[in-house]
Amino acid sequence: MANLETYRADARNVPAPSNKVPIPTLERLTTYLRYLIDLGASGVETISSAEIERQTGINAAQFRKDLSHFGEFGKPGVGYNVTELEGRIARILQIHKVQPIILVGAGNLGSALMGYPGLKEHKFHIVTAFDSDPNKIGKHLWNIDVQDLRRLGDLNQVLGARIAILAVPANAAQSVTEKLIEAGIRAILNFAPILLRVPPHVVVRNVSFLQELAVLSYQLTEGERKTEK
Amino acid sequence: MANLETYRADARNVPAPSNKVPIPTLERLTTYLRYLIDLGASGVETISSAEIERQTGINAAQFRKDLSHFGEFGKPGVGYNVTELEGRIARILQIHKVQPIILVGAGNLGSALMGYPGLKEHKFHIVTAFDSDPNKIGKHLWNIDVQDLRRLGDLNQVLGARIAILAVPANAAQSVTEKLIEAGIRAILNFAPILLRVPPHVVVRNVSFLQELAVLSYQLTEGERKTEK
Repeated sequence: MANLETYRADARNVPAPSNKVPIPTLERLTTYLRYLIDLGASGVETISSAEIERQTGINAAQFRKDLSHFGEFGKPGVGYNVTELEGRIARILQIHKVQPIILVGAGNLGSALMGYPGLKEHKFHIVTAFDSDPNKIGKHLWNIDVQDLRRLGDLNQVLGARIAILAVPANAAQSVTEKLIEAGIRAILNFAPILLRVPPHVVVRNVSFLQELAVLSYQLTEGERKTEK
Repeated sequence: MANLETYRADARNVPAPSNKVPIPTLERLTTYLRYLIDLGASGVETISSAEIERQTGINAAQFRKDLSHFGEFGKPGVGYNVTELEGRIARILQIHKVQPIILVGAGNLGSALMGYPGLKEHKFHIVTAFDSDPNKIGKHLWNIDVQDLRRLGDLNQVLGARIAILAVPANAAQSVTEKLIEAGIRAILNFAPILLRVPPHVVVRNVSFLQELAVLSYQLTEGERKTEK
């Protein structure tokens, strides 16, 4: 894994895109980044869009189109400098610098997320966890303190986190969301299986494995129907 | 939470859709189902598409279009019978009956998933977990045994699972995937941050919180750029 600190040195300033960038493009950028980090770590210096296609399964034309939202990349006949491309994509996504994150819900899932190594590798640092359960408050998990949820507003004035991970039960998710927004949170990664209602200046992404499993369940049956024909 | 056993009694056979159903439609079906279950549990008998829009944020025309892939639903002027719609959507997604699932990777994330209450509520039962770490093999977590990964093929001849949850580190994910496919798995929910290579008869859905966080990180900055203007 390349030290992402190198992003800073190599990253150029990328101008703001002129149009709204589609979310699937942003998702694919993270996939490219993943491969570029690994390639950089193995000492590969340049890469072609054809090789990106071979490695990621995303076709070369799509790759070039995705990058075109953010300016000029690569050199004809030479390809893309791995370190430079890695740095620019990290900067586009604003994951070239450390971002403080707070987590609400120090249950099984929350604890697993606190210990997830990929977060730090991508410069997401969970700085504090919050819970309302007296049995969890005061615990120290993976070097992270679990604080009383009632202290969220006060503590985030100091922490200054704008991103939160929400790992609370569905019936608590909306009320905690309102507390998060009041405390200055502007982006929420929601693991609770409900749709959160938020004002327009707050962004939410949902991680729902139940939804994913239900889609798989459907696709599995669809595949079998085809085989039977 | 309504007992999903009631699905069986109420569900009608839904004919196979004539065309390939878009994945976003399937994802929205799981959202509708979520609300229908809660509504049914609170004793609500019928619902209009306008109310679905109010509750889920998905517009009424989209809701009707999503259902139209699967036949006729609801009665003009009356709306939709909650229990019936719930049963039919569950049957469409094939989550009206218990499905055995195996989990590979009994680390922090895997253990949290084993204890996740939403799985059983949606009739997904993790029947066995597998790991290759001798310190984890033989453990009994959330009433689930952790077995030696080398026994995957043998044990799945008995278990008959076709869906697997993959919660192993990125560097092990592809080789474990190949073992899963060999053992009869046809659908994989992948938590490892890599794209798995699978033959065409196997379906994969990826859960990547790093990807989701990176998209949030981008959207957060985009929002601030707009505010500054």
